[in-house]
Amino acid sequence: MDLYSGHINRLIDELASLPGIGGKSAQRLAFYIINLPKDRVKKLADSITNARENVHYCKVCCTLTDDDICPICNNPNRDHKTIMVVENARDLAAYEKTGKFEGVYHVLHGAISPMLGIGPGDIRLTELMQRLQTEDVEEVIVATNSSLEGETTAMYISKLVKPTGIKVTRIASGVPVGGDLEYIDEVTLLRALEGRTEL
Amino acid sequence: MDLYSGHINRLIDELASLPGIGGKSAQRLAFYIINLPKDRVKKLADSITNARENVHYCKVCCTLTDDDICPICNNPNRDHKTIMVVENARDLAAYEKTGKFEGVYHVLHGAISPMLGIGPGDIRLTELMQRLQTEDVEEVIVATNSSLEGETTAMYISKLVKPTGIKVTRIASGVPVGGDLEYIDEVTLLRALEGRTEL
Repeated sequence: MDLYSGHINRLIDELASLPGIGGKSAQRLAFYIINLPKDRVKKLADSITNARENVHYCKVCCTLTDDDICPICNNPNRDHKTIMVVENARDLAAYEKTGKFEGVYHVLHGAISPMLGIGPGDIRLTELMQRLQTEDVEEVIVATNSSLEGETTAMYISKLVKPTGIKVTRIASGVPVGGDLEYIDEVTLLRALEGRTEL
Repeated sequence: MDLYSGHINRLIDELASLPGIGGKSAQRLAFYIINLPKDRVKKLADSITNARENVHYCKVCCTLTDDDICPICNNPNRDHKTIMVVENARDLAAYEKTGKFEGVYHVLHGAISPMLGIGPGDIRLTELMQRLQTEDVEEVIVATNSSLEGETTAMYISKLVKPTGIKVTRIASGVPVGGDLEYIDEVTLLRALEGRTEL
């Protein structure tokens, strides 16, 4: 016999299928939702449907946006000659939060990963190369993650872009600010050493 | 400036308002949802709306159900003379999972907590007393949690029910099965000692 009613079970199953939500959390969330006021529940369900229906890729940088062209690409005050390439919209947001990057972005929506069967054709590289041909770009900053996939993607991009004569740079890899050397892995320590700069 | 589009921000805000989901998890979930196939997203949103719209209290035991009367109260093979009183539907499910309890339930939807301003009138005690008057009940097993609120509620119920002549019992409190005495708090150890039974 099912422990809960059909509707509750369906809700629990749906919630438990989301990443990072286990069976117990799904149960707790389901009961929380059932006890919410109806208008709050409607807002929650609508926000899910609306986000999926109305969010699409920016025609220029491929980030997720409500409009045809995202507010960053549409902003004339940004430096459109400097493109930072990131793996996803969350990484874009992370750099935007610093408030110090004045250029524009290009979102790949992934990284090359032979292990997962993700090749160069599966991420937004064609769109990047088209931008470099049509726009007046001076520098491409590759800010993919410092993981195996991120590094592979960075190498691939550098090989693609170099023949065009456009400068390609890679964000520095090293000891994070506030990081304690004792607890940092050897690869990072060696990277930090290689990337040392003069004081 | 907002880091994401309006729809994404609204979805993140809605998700982050749920219990146990922080800002980072809400962000991860939102991007996961945006990348799901449309029919999966519709199923998720519908399950939320449907659960809230169609789930209500069982007219007999107050548990959450799709029908007027829940399958347990409707089951003639259950022992309707024994009512187990629990705080919520999850506790009911926990006892149902044991598969050994043949009686029926009464769900209070809370416990008396002067700290949180929850009095006897805020939980489904009136409904319980009405059942005891109209149904042929032999025993009320109080299975509220072993917390301050649960114990207070248990005492309160015992005082209400005793004058009716119906037997009131309380589930045992003690060392959990598999529990290591070394790591168990003193109150539990004393409870286990008080509640010792002959071998």
